[in-house]
Amino acid sequence: MQGTRVYSPAGEELGHIDDVMIDTSSGKIVYGVLEFGGFLGIGSDHHAIPFGKLRYDTSREGYVTDLTKEQLEQAPRQHETWREDREWQRRSHEYYGVAPYWL
Amino acid sequence: MQGTRVYSPAGEELGHIDDVMIDTSSGKIVYGVLEFGGFLGIGSDHHAIPFGKLRYDTSREGYVTDLTKEQLEQAPRQHETWREDREWQRRSHEYYGVAPYWL
Repeated sequence: MQGTRVYSPAGEELGHIDDVMIDTSSGKIVYGVLEFGGFLGIGSDHHAIPFGKLRYDTSREGYVTDLTKEQLEQAPRQHETWREDREWQRRSHEYYGVAPYWL
Repeated sequence: MQGTRVYSPAGEELGHIDDVMIDTSSGKIVYGVLEFGGFLGIGSDHHAIPFGKLRYDTSREGYVTDLTKEQLEQAPRQHETWREDREWQRRSHEYYGVAPYWL
């Protein structure tokens, strides 16, 4: 799971999954944390992306997302407790246009 | 997720989730690894249980399973590469009476 690469629909590599957030109750991944940019982790950005924006492509053995770099760069930034912050999660799901996982 | 306690239907604590296995493609937990017995991890057993046998109970903030200790003790033992071993997974799902996640 960790380390799985993420591509644009055109096949450009955007980064890789650095971490996930799992909903304990349903046992589903609700966020994949994309690490992108930088070099060997230095100067890289981390963005928690609702899992609904990641589609697994077996031929590439990676996820494909239709998010653009611009959308990623302007996405709500995580803060330390985003995993417990339902209001942050609401804003982030709204930003990415994904239905909340908790409803 | 890790550390979540697992109970019998009668409320007896069986152990806790030590690890999970995620299906990259669907983003779902397919196995929860139950650690039980022993003391401070010494002498404890680990059993990979199909996630379908774990039901989250919000009032207990833990999983409930109808598996008995006897069923757990006699379950197929994991070996080093069980996460990649479809044949082992087939046997284990059959043992626990859960439909395979990969079909």
